[in-house]
Amino acid sequence: MRQVAVLGIGQTKVDEHWDRSLRDLASDAILSALQDAGRLSCDGLFIGNMLSGMVDNQNNLGALIADWSGLRQAEAVKVEAACASGSAAFRSGLMAVSSGEMDAALVVGVEKMTDAHPHDVTAALATAADADYEGEQGVSFVSLNALIMQRYMYEYGWKHGDFAPFSVNAHANAMFNPYARLHTRITSESFEKADMIASPINLLDASPIGDGAAAILLVPAESLTNTTRIAVVASASATDTIAIHDRADALFLNAAYLSARSAYKQAGIEPKDINFFELHDAFSIMSALSLEACGFAERGQGPRLGLNGSITTKGRLPISTRGGLKARGHPVGATGMYQLVELVQQLRGDCAETQVENATIGMAQNIGGSGATILTHIIKRLDP
Amino acid sequence: MRQVAVLGIGQTKVDEHWDRSLRDLASDAILSALQDAGRLSCDGLFIGNMLSGMVDNQNNLGALIADWSGLRQAEAVKVEAACASGSAAFRSGLMAVSSGEMDAALVVGVEKMTDAHPHDVTAALATAADADYEGEQGVSFVSLNALIMQRYMYEYGWKHGDFAPFSVNAHANAMFNPYARLHTRITSESFEKADMIASPINLLDASPIGDGAAAILLVPAESLTNTTRIAVVASASATDTIAIHDRADALFLNAAYLSARSAYKQAGIEPKDINFFELHDAFSIMSALSLEACGFAERGQGPRLGLNGSITTKGRLPISTRGGLKARGHPVGATGMYQLVELVQQLRGDCAETQVENATIGMAQNIGGSGATILTHIIKRLDP
Repeated sequence: MRQVAVLGIGQTKVDEHWDRSLRDLASDAILSALQDAGRLSCDGLFIGNMLSGMVDNQNNLGALIADWSGLRQAEAVKVEAACASGSAAFRSGLMAVSSGEMDAALVVGVEKMTDAHPHDVTAALATAADADYEGEQGVSFVSLNALIMQRYMYEYGWKHGDFAPFSVNAHANAMFNPYARLHTRITSESFEKADMIASPINLLDASPIGDGAAAILLVPAESLTNTTRIAVVASASATDTIAIHDRADALFLNAAYLSARSAYKQAGIEPKDINFFELHDAFSIMSALSLEACGFAERGQGPRLGLNGSITTKGRLPISTRGGLKARGHPVGATGMYQLVELVQQLRGDCAETQVENATIGMAQNIGGSGATILTHIIKRLDP
Repeated sequence: MRQVAVLGIGQTKVDEHWDRSLRDLASDAILSALQDAGRLSCDGLFIGNMLSGMVDNQNNLGALIADWSGLRQAEAVKVEAACASGSAAFRSGLMAVSSGEMDAALVVGVEKMTDAHPHDVTAALATAADADYEGEQGVSFVSLNALIMQRYMYEYGWKHGDFAPFSVNAHANAMFNPYARLHTRITSESFEKADMIASPINLLDASPIGDGAAAILLVPAESLTNTTRIAVVASASATDTIAIHDRADALFLNAAYLSARSAYKQAGIEPKDINFFELHDAFSIMSALSLEACGFAERGQGPRLGLNGSITTKGRLPISTRGGLKARGHPVGATGMYQLVELVQQLRGDCAETQVENATIGMAQNIGGSGATILTHIIKRLDP
């Protein structure tokens, strides 16, 4: 297999884009990535998206977006893994280039969610869970995560306020990311006072949805010489039971553990070698569980990394450095690609106020469903 | 890149499966394919599906199906390209094995359509077209194909009855396929008398939807020694404009031409070397257009191959040898995988009454949307 490198990145702001359709958003990100790469075309297009059928009445996104973005005739396909669709598409693009099948693969994650009624979006998001055994009971995605968080607090003795640093850090970092949806600082106090959604999850535990697209152009690393290369050194994916009630332990993200373990092995590194980590903070509880499953904290001790300052951009393991899902926003099928674009921004040293010093190795983890599908990628800067 | 071979196949009957859910159908096909291969597991799962979100309220199919079919923890993802989803998933599985990323990839196409109201299914199918510029006008998928067929008959002077052989042949072959949805012989006379859907397309021009799943286990060809190998010798995908009105010529399937041309080149063969062809006869007009774009007939002359008997299992270029979409049935996201499973059945010599004599090289072509996404695969029997 050939090593694969990132040549170009592009993204739109996560927002309510009333004037841009699904195809516009995808094309905006694609054209930015091509421009960033100094290329005019690619061999194939991989689209990460979850909800276009249900929310936009549009399937066949591959052809739609190839057509609209000036890549007509190009091979194109959509990849779906619920909220992990973006990184799942990235992994497909990666295999297309590593196999030698393509010399330039463009991956774009895109989601257009805010045209639909919030009730419909909530119902659509619930399709990431088990429709027959969970969705059928009327649970939403927030309520499933609330059940997990409640149990976690009970088992390990944490108070709700102990999760505040995850959200406070994300909002603080988003202040310096022009592509983030939310540009509002929050405090531990406002975190505790926010409106309740599904106890114990309140508005500031939860990430906002949004419209947006993020894209990356992948090429063989060997095609880039005498230059700094941003190389994908690990890519792994694993699944768990789709329904939470089928798990022996609902407080451990086994698919995160499996995919991270595989990723560390591929990259030949250990958790301590990771300089920063873009994790899937769709809800604050997911930050804790992700840190634990990936070997950054003991079982039940995830919140400690927030409380002791490790997760800020000056800390030992910065997370959500561009705002995370919590404040950059969570356009579900696009999120995995935003994480990877942000990884590249850090490795290029383009993050100004929130730059992680000496960022050389970054990890991104993207979760689909209640921990059912989890992908982990590690990207490394290789100087010539 | 490593050459990839088919080690196992499995399928369910295409039918109204009132007693089998989406996950049951997928698992039935997966377990059959594993049993056929003599394996207990695989490295990853690729799901071809179009409508599970809209029709079954279920996304995140990768995790769902890995979980249910006893492959829990395995990497799994869904691939969507409208009615070409099945073969698009196959191509993803192919790249996973050819790249060396996996040593055994299971691909399954699955669709469960008959639980929903037919009006909802018709609306869901229309999402394969351009939602903003075609679907928005109220056109259904049948009416889009009817516009193409009407223009084709006008341009080239064919009568509706000239398309009868495509459907008569498909129904005749399906009589001997236990997995086919329709087991009824039809004649040129009954073809002409069938109920009209959208002029000139009547009920016997159109394929029936259905529930079903078909699966294939892919392994590196080099892992099979001293045995007959069923090798995938070409895989190609191309797109066209998603909307028909954007094409310079609405009567030519350019994406079929491009993907077939690429496939012939990869396999080092010409159209005349193909022993049989599983084409995408969702509507009779598509058979004609596919034969023309792939070099088997001159422009406007596709129906002639039906009228002169070339397309029967004893003819020069047998098509729809197991019933095609027309009579085996068209569970949309699964169809591409049914075609490939049927290709393997022919190459193994397992087709009894409809066996193509000396079948060595077979081609399958799968269409998503009105010719917007088209994949072409060529599979060859390599004797030791």
